[in-house]
Amino acid sequence: MKKLKINIEYDGTPYCGWQIQPNGRSIQEELMKALFQLTGQNVTIHGAGRTDAKVHAYGQCASLEIDCGIPPEKFPAAMNSCLPNDIVVTNALEVPKDFHARYSAKGKQYEYRIINRKYRSAIHRNYAWHLSTPLNRDLMEDAMDAFKGTHDFSQFMASGSDVRDTVRRITRSELVQGETPEKMSIILEGNGFLYKMVRMMVAAVVEIGMNKSGKSQLSKRLTLEETCHNKWTAPPQGLFLNKVYYDEAYFSLDTPGTMV
Amino acid sequence: MKKLKINIEYDGTPYCGWQIQPNGRSIQEELMKALFQLTGQNVTIHGAGRTDAKVHAYGQCASLEIDCGIPPEKFPAAMNSCLPNDIVVTNALEVPKDFHARYSAKGKQYEYRIINRKYRSAIHRNYAWHLSTPLNRDLMEDAMDAFKGTHDFSQFMASGSDVRDTVRRITRSELVQGETPEKMSIILEGNGFLYKMVRMMVAAVVEIGMNKSGKSQLSKRLTLEETCHNKWTAPPQGLFLNKVYYDEAYFSLDTPGTMV
Repeated sequence: MKKLKINIEYDGTPYCGWQIQPNGRSIQEELMKALFQLTGQNVTIHGAGRTDAKVHAYGQCASLEIDCGIPPEKFPAAMNSCLPNDIVVTNALEVPKDFHARYSAKGKQYEYRIINRKYRSAIHRNYAWHLSTPLNRDLMEDAMDAFKGTHDFSQFMASGSDVRDTVRRITRSELVQGETPEKMSIILEGNGFLYKMVRMMVAAVVEIGMNKSGKSQLSKRLTLEETCHNKWTAPPQGLFLNKVYYDEAYFSLDTPGTMV
Repeated sequence: MKKLKINIEYDGTPYCGWQIQPNGRSIQEELMKALFQLTGQNVTIHGAGRTDAKVHAYGQCASLEIDCGIPPEKFPAAMNSCLPNDIVVTNALEVPKDFHARYSAKGKQYEYRIINRKYRSAIHRNYAWHLSTPLNRDLMEDAMDAFKGTHDFSQFMASGSDVRDTVRRITRSELVQGETPEKMSIILEGNGFLYKMVRMMVAAVVEIGMNKSGKSQLSKRLTLEETCHNKWTAPPQGLFLNKVYYDEAYFSLDTPGTMV
């Protein structure tokens, strides 16, 4: 048995999300189907994060234990030949047995894409949030500073999660100009994210860009001085899981077997 | 009767191209269906360029004559309410009666997107050409200079066109770095383009980036010293019609009616 870490890119548009669901196609299920096709084994695969329906990933990571002769460097091509064209394995690496894509993750980077112009976009309709109200980017940029550092993000968590510790550390919170003036990206990096936290952070920043709220309200929500009853959530299609960070030590031994 | 110039963005993925075809959905047909729904009239619409199946547009232009009370500034929203979500009208302007989206066009800008990495892309599969062979961008950039100026592009034209004058002037020919290192765009601007000319120019540049051809061969093909029998053509999904250029004089009168 070998433990592998794989990197996956996917277009989340037609999927019900990462996790296997009784109804609807999921990324996890497609990967497990491909693994079965390749190896004849029912292999369980653990993702670093459970992305929601319509959410995309450039760099989702997953771990799996497998008993097969395919060397890790040939594993992506083998998997890709069994996967639909909206899912692709971009890397595979043998890792120590104690590696777990979710529990070993040190941090994640998300990107949220916004298209701010009068009319909806035909080309970006599944890959960005279209907002027709002109957004004040200076106000957004300034407010996003408030996210940095360690905060109790319980006011940025959707119900339906049983997480108890709601304290997370945000290490990057940045508004980046897109390739054309109408586009922008919100980049958020941190040691962990609660259920729908990124989409709630984005919606809060957008509200500020629309001049419907301010940085001080955002700060109060972060210090729990203000409770937010009507948590606005950005739609899923603008969200991309860009990267998952791990301790480099996991990948330093590249001689298979030595780390078992 | 009013003459209108409209700008259209579309995701060409599910379409057989701009032009109405007996089999398959076309952009032109969808626009005419929307016009019929809006006005009850069968309105003919002329596009600036006939994009092929799977080719996209950020800035296709079209002209149409219409007898309806909707003011031009409200025309995009009215049309968009009748159009599928992969087609959007982004602007409408009343223009003089002698304006014709195709014959009045002074130039066009095309962009061709390439993704150069080992594995195919899930997210960009319908919006870029995936090439796994590493491309030498310096060679490509250098070779692209050869396109600039006035040339007989008959060696960059697919059969199936009855065009006699094959001389075109290229005013911009540039390789632009994409948002990530694996992405790049080829920007081509000129006074006109022959059938599949952009895709053949791109394929020729890519061949140079792969070190399978050189700038001198490209130059010979442009001066007709060398005849190319096996014209390699880049696939359609990487191509975007970005802009169509017209004489500004057409749009200088913005008081409706005065130019009739």
